[in-house]
Amino acid sequence: MRAQTTGTSSRRPADQVSLRRHNLSVVVRHLREHGPRSRARIAADTGLNKATVSSIVAELVERRLITSGEAEHGAIGRPGRAVELDDYTICGIGAEINVDYVSVTAIDLRGQVIVTRRHPVDAARAGTDVVLDAVAALVASVRDLLAGQARLEVGLVLGVPGLVDARAGILRNAANLGWADLDLAGLLTQRLGAVELPIQVDNEANLAAIAEHSHRHGAVADLILLTGAVGVGAGIVSDGRLVRGHAGHAGEAGHMPVELGGGLCGCGRRGCWETRVGLWPLLHALADIGDEVLDPSLDVEQRLAEVVSRAESGDRRTLDALAQVGSWLGVGASTLANIVDPALIVLGGHLATVGPWVLAPMRRELASRVIGANPHGGPTCEVEISPLGVGAAALGAAEVALDALFDDPTLAPRVVGVDAAGA
Amino acid sequence: MRAQTTGTSSRRPADQVSLRRHNLSVVVRHLREHGPRSRARIAADTGLNKATVSSIVAELVERRLITSGEAEHGAIGRPGRAVELDDYTICGIGAEINVDYVSVTAIDLRGQVIVTRRHPVDAARAGTDVVLDAVAALVASVRDLLAGQARLEVGLVLGVPGLVDARAGILRNAANLGWADLDLAGLLTQRLGAVELPIQVDNEANLAAIAEHSHRHGAVADLILLTGAVGVGAGIVSDGRLVRGHAGHAGEAGHMPVELGGGLCGCGRRGCWETRVGLWPLLHALADIGDEVLDPSLDVEQRLAEVVSRAESGDRRTLDALAQVGSWLGVGASTLANIVDPALIVLGGHLATVGPWVLAPMRRELASRVIGANPHGGPTCEVEISPLGVGAAALGAAEVALDALFDDPTLAPRVVGVDAAGA
Repeated sequence: MRAQTTGTSSRRPADQVSLRRHNLSVVVRHLREHGPRSRARIAADTGLNKATVSSIVAELVERRLITSGEAEHGAIGRPGRAVELDDYTICGIGAEINVDYVSVTAIDLRGQVIVTRRHPVDAARAGTDVVLDAVAALVASVRDLLAGQARLEVGLVLGVPGLVDARAGILRNAANLGWADLDLAGLLTQRLGAVELPIQVDNEANLAAIAEHSHRHGAVADLILLTGAVGVGAGIVSDGRLVRGHAGHAGEAGHMPVELGGGLCGCGRRGCWETRVGLWPLLHALADIGDEVLDPSLDVEQRLAEVVSRAESGDRRTLDALAQVGSWLGVGASTLANIVDPALIVLGGHLATVGPWVLAPMRRELASRVIGANPHGGPTCEVEISPLGVGAAALGAAEVALDALFDDPTLAPRVVGVDAAGA
Repeated sequence: MRAQTTGTSSRRPADQVSLRRHNLSVVVRHLREHGPRSRARIAADTGLNKATVSSIVAELVERRLITSGEAEHGAIGRPGRAVELDDYTICGIGAEINVDYVSVTAIDLRGQVIVTRRHPVDAARAGTDVVLDAVAALVASVRDLLAGQARLEVGLVLGVPGLVDARAGILRNAANLGWADLDLAGLLTQRLGAVELPIQVDNEANLAAIAEHSHRHGAVADLILLTGAVGVGAGIVSDGRLVRGHAGHAGEAGHMPVELGGGLCGCGRRGCWETRVGLWPLLHALADIGDEVLDPSLDVEQRLAEVVSRAESGDRRTLDALAQVGSWLGVGASTLANIVDPALIVLGGHLATVGPWVLAPMRRELASRVIGANPHGGPTCEVEISPLGVGAAALGAAEVALDALFDDPTLAPRVVGVDAAGA
């Protein structure tokens, strides 16, 4: 039975509180990583004593982070009721603004998608007000749905394709949107009204990389997600952790120089990687002015569908342009690979759409350029098309929205009258 | 009073043992990071109960990892004898093979250097046997000194400029030494005789980066160490952790393409960064055949001293060549900076020697190329000349040799009869 929340805050001394918080986090993270298990098993696994585990489990049930599941015959010999992550009440919301759409996704504590909604918008032309209104409308519709199901969202993370000061919630610069120095967290909070919902902002490639890492259940500890929208960005996971960098700007690979004195980039420099693998260079390489793939009245998705259709029908010019992009992808990706040595590079965004035609030339460049791929070196890295597609960033955002709760379970409100049988 | 070691191993059940080991590690790492403090303070800081802390402190004293120091008046109000990391008995040994020297350094648990020895050798010409004999002789002389002082070394880490499979202790490829697929750990173990000393092998840029990070007491969580010997390698620390990558090959920045179709590199490719910032391109840019700086009978250090002397005397050709190298350093470093976003880039190896003349042009390129440095971005990264110089890799190696002990203090042998007063 679900019931009202109480506002009671703890009155224990500070160090006791932080110790308790730490142990709550240890248990809830243990369940996330290892799945359902009995209290006795949790005690054995974590080294916490059984009385502490029982008390922690009771509190986590009160906070609706875990539920008592089926009876389990554990290794200890005595059957105990297994506890597991709740898969209903507590939700995280992820949102994404990209050049041609906004989207919102809600997930439960187990990472399962409850709802995902997407709305096309030409973000650079529409401007910040229209785009943020669209995001706010999608978020509101998702929150209505969650409220109707008696669920409770605990946070929202917004992903954007640009340099983000994540601590301040400020978008510093998004060249491909033409946006700079925007307090996106503040602007979205205004639109959502007085409701209390912590809002964070992050780079969309970072968020997509987090989602790709989770999707593989931690089996690939070192991966790079390359996301193409108009530009190209990288999200880097090294040894299971996102590489953010000093100012949170890690992964700004789109502007690495691959050709000194090369084509002019939107950033004002010449020869940036984006000038070879971005969406516009691709479209201009395979079509002349007047061709519908260059028609700005069509959205990016429609134009990419046309490119795919031509590639599938064997159009030589399209195939050549895609092969060129594939080679240049390999040139830049080999630098990334030599610097961070991933086991896997995942193609996301528009790169995923054209993936089948760029993979082979990209792999060829990697094989010849990645140091570990030489005869005396170790294994080189794999390349895959994202299984998550354009939803990756919003999914990763929703996961990050829940992270604060896994770090500090006391952020989830306690309820009174909840069924905590067996605690 | 120091006394004999006992071989007694623990007989407690596995999960109790691992819990104990974890708590021993928590306490000894806490002392490393935060310095001397009383048992009561350790209990308050870590959340461990006082009885557990007393028992852990007693064991750590028995294992000579910590000592009871001066009486301390803690915040708790009751004076207690402070405990702190031992600064005598337990040592780590770091060694380095580079193109023109081998070196060995021993440090105590507090990271203080006990002894460092260096021996010039033309590693590529001399070949593996001569070089490893030289390393073994230096290690043996350092161990004799440590034994004479009744100290106890617990591990040795060897740094080399090349691709290393650190898990297997194997050097995969060191292009600038002309070495490949060498079981360096095995070869060095043979030379050191039957003595039990765990030996690990690692990349020298990684080890130097670890030393630079420690040297700043963790104040710079994101840094890149660029080390120049003949080639150029990077050691990357992100959020306080070394970025190793999937196969341990992260930081292989020397072969990133900066000039498609550029000069031929030792690796067989064209236009690698090394062809613009390596030592040989620098020397060839500032001297003609017959010039002493190109004389192979002089060692690298002598030739660099001549370069520095010419630069100091204002020789135009030398200054121009150094300025060129500085610009190219900035080009490659800006790619590294855009990918991992460090707060600081440290110049080590021969780059440190010529640092005063390359810093300005390097900084100019970084300012114009690092994305965070544009008008809408955040702060760009700083560049510094390494304060540790050529000793950085061996120092970092010695630190890593001690890491195993901070992770698992039970690796240090117990002694009986040690003074554990107050435990």
